[in-house]
Amino acid sequence: MEGVDHLAHERNKTEFDVDAMKIVWAGSRHAFELSDRMARLVASDPVFRKDDRTRLGRKELFKNTLRKASHAWKRILELRLTGPCVITEEEAGQLRNFVDEPSFTDLHWEMFVPAIKGQGTDEQQQKWLPLAYKMQIIGSYAQTELGHGSNVQGLETTATFDPETDEFVINSPTLTSSKWWPGGLGRICTHAIVYARLITNGQEHGVHGFIVQLRSLDDHMPLPGITIGDIGMKFGNGAYNTMDNGVSKFDHIRIPRNQMLMRVLQVTREGKCVQSNVPRQLIYGTMVFVRQTIVANASTALSRAVCIATRYSAVRRQFGSQDGGMETQVIDYKTQQSRLFPLLASAYAFRFVGEWLKWLYTDVTQRLQAKDFSTLPEAHACTAGLKSLTTAATADAIEECRKLCGGHGYLCASGLPELFAVYVPACTYEGDNVVLLLQVARFLMKTVSQLDSGKKPVGTTAYLGRVQDLLRCCCDVQRDEDWLKPGVVLEAFEARSARMCVACAKNLSKFENPEDGFAELSADLVEAAVAHCQLIVVSKRKGEPDLTPATARGESDHHNKDEGFIDKLQQDIPGKGVKQQLQNLYYIYVLNLVHKYLGDFLSTGCITPKQASLANDQLRSLYSQIRPNAIALVDAFNYTDHYLGSVLGRSDGNVYPKLYEEAWKDPLNDSVVPDGYHEYVHPMLKQQLRNARL
Amino acid sequence: MEGVDHLAHERNKTEFDVDAMKIVWAGSRHAFELSDRMARLVASDPVFRKDDRTRLGRKELFKNTLRKASHAWKRILELRLTGPCVITEEEAGQLRNFVDEPSFTDLHWEMFVPAIKGQGTDEQQQKWLPLAYKMQIIGSYAQTELGHGSNVQGLETTATFDPETDEFVINSPTLTSSKWWPGGLGRICTHAIVYARLITNGQEHGVHGFIVQLRSLDDHMPLPGITIGDIGMKFGNGAYNTMDNGVSKFDHIRIPRNQMLMRVLQVTREGKCVQSNVPRQLIYGTMVFVRQTIVANASTALSRAVCIATRYSAVRRQFGSQDGGMETQVIDYKTQQSRLFPLLASAYAFRFVGEWLKWLYTDVTQRLQAKDFSTLPEAHACTAGLKSLTTAATADAIEECRKLCGGHGYLCASGLPELFAVYVPACTYEGDNVVLLLQVARFLMKTVSQLDSGKKPVGTTAYLGRVQDLLRCCCDVQRDEDWLKPGVVLEAFEARSARMCVACAKNLSKFENPEDGFAELSADLVEAAVAHCQLIVVSKRKGEPDLTPATARGESDHHNKDEGFIDKLQQDIPGKGVKQQLQNLYYIYVLNLVHKYLGDFLSTGCITPKQASLANDQLRSLYSQIRPNAIALVDAFNYTDHYLGSVLGRSDGNVYPKLYEEAWKDPLNDSVVPDGYHEYVHPMLKQQLRNARL
Repeated sequence: MEGVDHLAHERNKTEFDVDAMKIVWAGSRHAFELSDRMARLVASDPVFRKDDRTRLGRKELFKNTLRKASHAWKRILELRLTGPCVITEEEAGQLRNFVDEPSFTDLHWEMFVPAIKGQGTDEQQQKWLPLAYKMQIIGSYAQTELGHGSNVQGLETTATFDPETDEFVINSPTLTSSKWWPGGLGRICTHAIVYARLITNGQEHGVHGFIVQLRSLDDHMPLPGITIGDIGMKFGNGAYNTMDNGVSKFDHIRIPRNQMLMRVLQVTREGKCVQSNVPRQLIYGTMVFVRQTIVANASTALSRAVCIATRYSAVRRQFGSQDGGMETQVIDYKTQQSRLFPLLASAYAFRFVGEWLKWLYTDVTQRLQAKDFSTLPEAHACTAGLKSLTTAATADAIEECRKLCGGHGYLCASGLPELFAVYVPACTYEGDNVVLLLQVARFLMKTVSQLDSGKKPVGTTAYLGRVQDLLRCCCDVQRDEDWLKPGVVLEAFEARSARMCVACAKNLSKFENPEDGFAELSADLVEAAVAHCQLIVVSKRKGEPDLTPATARGESDHHNKDEGFIDKLQQDIPGKGVKQQLQNLYYIYVLNLVHKYLGDFLSTGCITPKQASLANDQLRSLYSQIRPNAIALVDAFNYTDHYLGSVLGRSDGNVYPKLYEEAWKDPLNDSVVPDGYHEYVHPMLKQQLRNARL
Repeated sequence: MEGVDHLAHERNKTEFDVDAMKIVWAGSRHAFELSDRMARLVASDPVFRKDDRTRLGRKELFKNTLRKASHAWKRILELRLTGPCVITEEEAGQLRNFVDEPSFTDLHWEMFVPAIKGQGTDEQQQKWLPLAYKMQIIGSYAQTELGHGSNVQGLETTATFDPETDEFVINSPTLTSSKWWPGGLGRICTHAIVYARLITNGQEHGVHGFIVQLRSLDDHMPLPGITIGDIGMKFGNGAYNTMDNGVSKFDHIRIPRNQMLMRVLQVTREGKCVQSNVPRQLIYGTMVFVRQTIVANASTALSRAVCIATRYSAVRRQFGSQDGGMETQVIDYKTQQSRLFPLLASAYAFRFVGEWLKWLYTDVTQRLQAKDFSTLPEAHACTAGLKSLTTAATADAIEECRKLCGGHGYLCASGLPELFAVYVPACTYEGDNVVLLLQVARFLMKTVSQLDSGKKPVGTTAYLGRVQDLLRCCCDVQRDEDWLKPGVVLEAFEARSARMCVACAKNLSKFENPEDGFAELSADLVEAAVAHCQLIVVSKRKGEPDLTPATARGESDHHNKDEGFIDKLQQDIPGKGVKQQLQNLYYIYVLNLVHKYLGDFLSTGCITPKQASLANDQLRSLYSQIRPNAIALVDAFNYTDHYLGSVLGRSDGNVYPKLYEEAWKDPLNDSVVPDGYHEYVHPMLKQQLRNARL
């Protein structure tokens, strides 16, 4: 059965050009070719094997990660020198992604280096970046403490300037001030950016970053005054246990003054604080960048899970056999389709909104360089909200995909338990999802409150400028196919969000103290924020330039170049049938939201129960249309079997023999009679405990 | 700080008698004392230590489980002989529960023994049960195969009668017929009930159970013709990896004819099949039993997670500090309350509906003995539905509790990752949750279709007898406190369920072939089933005996003795303030459902948007009322710190020092310079890969 494609009958049903869809998914031909090349390179290298990962104990697992990280670095260096073309930093990042194993290098490249770039002065960058680029030092990012996560301003670590020696004294005054969580800190990093409260001349000046050397570059021993270790096991087999998230305490250790990152605020030789002419807002630009990466990663994780569940749903047969024939493929059950296909549609939706966010980041960066901060609050709210929305949905979806695989989804061999365990922290790091939604809500309430004063909302909040219309409008769906009109869908989502925002604002106005109101109504506010963020995913489209203040329009008009879902549908898309599939996916995404959040739509009067029922009818019809293309739609993600890491999701569908084969690799199968049998089980069977009344 | 109660300020706020609530939670004083004694016995025994579990590799972990199982058995035997009172089977089961580690003994006691009791003839019981009771044999339950789970009738293993030798030949004809999943099968069990298609004289007679010896009782080697092993790693650290779920293939192995379980169907010496006079329906009684246990376990798992999240939410402080004072406890945030308190309320709700199911099982058993099968379909649908509802809600809730603990919830030390990983299979085993809901839906559609013919629905479907009223009724909530009337709540839930059922029935009637309709509308049918099951949890109360057919009334009137939530509220409950707390929890459970399933209530016109908004107002007010009692309400579960197994959920609230202490136990902290550093990291830092262009 080796070499046979057990899903060929599925692939034969495909009604569109899969290769063209691969380009759409990747974003461009170049992006496709790059990721294809890197994925194959990793998959073909035996060092990057990962099918044994969930069976390894912590030490063995960790050592293996070090081996892979070192090998990946070696491959990157080789490719720079001898590859078919010189590898770029982006390509090197792709290679690391496909290794698909969290390690200290993640923090080094994704947090340590960008922090120096973003917060370091030119001289600091010149000194530290070359060392970091060559990995002559390995850095972590030490912000979170045992007692403080979301509330960064509450961090307890102190950095006190000592004018006598021109040094900062870094100290952990309490147990809860111990740095806790930074990846790579536990056993590997030589340096870290440590965030601490700056104190000079007895005065506090907020939280800032300091470059602190943690370990000797010679023998790797922690430097004097530094207590440092790994914080212990985390969720799942393999998963994030390949990473040495660490704890560290500082006992009055000293660093030179020039190791405070001083791009924004400088401390002089005398200990005076001087604001530089670099705007503080720059850090928001970095947040937009980090969060757009998280949104992109959400679509990746979600699509992996969906790929596994979709393929296995086509392989698995259960019930429905008549006259001894084949049983029904579980993907043919409407219950399976109604759970699986909306997740497939979400994977595509998040992919496209992620592409759009990339553009938003470029736009914001250009504006920042031109000292135009006008779109920053909106961009910040937008990325915060999408980070929350996509990570929460993805975490839930991975577990749902696991359940859709029935019992076998519970085996590590399915790949889904590890994918879940490694993914879920995304709901918490870089902004707890609920805290972020409250930030979005705060921005929305501010936007609504300013409507009367004539301030025009921009970008993703532009629709609130038409709030009077949206409070009045009526959905004019009369037949189920009316739900396939983009205008109808958009208006329903805009009206829902606008009405929920206005209702919240009205309820808030009943409180004397607005902060009390915000606290009391926070659960409602979170729901309004979710409605707004779903609208963004649904509506990313050519902006309404007339609503954008003229001053805010530079070379690249805000929201002018879009890569959102609805925008994709308005382009000419090459490839037979591709556009049709994207349309079907779009409406599945949209109408499933209408169904799932029906309470919102009905309670705000945006649609009627009858229209809701028509949306359901349309949804069922779309499931039938997607069904024959389901396998091809997950093939379009172009994942190698190595990257998927799932027996259930194998591209050739040859699931059962491989599952059987895999079982025997478990250490418990090393011996026929297990260790402990003679000591504990045999005496039980032989009643050597028999002197009891039974 | 040892010995200090960091949650004392919380416990001082309590407005009710916690000891009295402990009795309510346990079900009776006797039940409380029993579980309290067993929990302490296990907690105080160092062999049952489990805080190192998530750090152990598979072999070490498994050996340790064997040790614990053997030790538990020894303790049980000792207690039978010398304990303060003679231990019963129920008490022995409690002791095993508190050991809190899945092992082969679970299958032995919970599946192997009951299967012989339920399906074995008297002679078979006399032969096998004493061996099993003394653990001279250890049994598993081998039903599921690699290719078949839910569809038991599709199992492929065969048992062919050979009249020459008076034996059955057990055979695995295909790879997919390999037995797959049975706990204890992998490395330990000596015997199993193997389910196989019975074939005699060339004819098939359905699937039956056969007692098959797997391993030698002398040297534990698999018997000839049997291939057997462990199926490999499953989700999570520790978790179910303590269990040797197994795979086995049979190559024409032979067992004596009298090892087929023949209580219902007998195979004679000549190979003829003879139906006994024992009704087949008996097996449904067993299913009711198993599923009521699962519902009880759901409330246990959920309450553990809620206990951890509630205590840690009172310990954790974040934001809101003014003038350098303490920050706000996260439990005081409405966003936290609106996620946490409904889960606390669900724990209590599931506990009480579980108690009611115990009664239902007793009732069904008595009726079966009297050959009264009239209530069986309803009881079966009811337990299937509640199994699905409570396990799905509990799995989601554990993960939600983990998220409510912020970043630290991701550490194994929080106890929540393992609780989740060990719990989630409950959504799949003993009936996949969606398959079960479809069974409920089928029963509901049948009930609705028989209304016209005058057949009165019984028990939990009795309300459908008033369907005409329920289609017409209007909710008369005008102020938020109107939502605190039991009649109002019940009518809203009855109307919602009835209207959804009727709508489904109407849509089904449009199909020529009812099975096509059922398939096409299955997602809607599942939603109607959920609405019905939620009604059961909300409404368990004194039945309506006038609706129960006279013939169906025996000694114990159906639904006469209730232990449901609403029923508890109608009793006199001893203990200051206990009743008030239960009422608050009840309405939180109910009104949160109204909010979460608002689409159902609005689209069926059961309530208005205005009434929905009033329900939300009332919900917020209830959160404020529960808040000061939250810690005491989780204290009432009476869990030992050992059983909880969570640093975050410690009873004394001394979280951070213990978390810090726990970290150092990780194997990665055994050496300051980790294994692999010299080989892989040092060369990187020292640029021994330097011959590259950088």
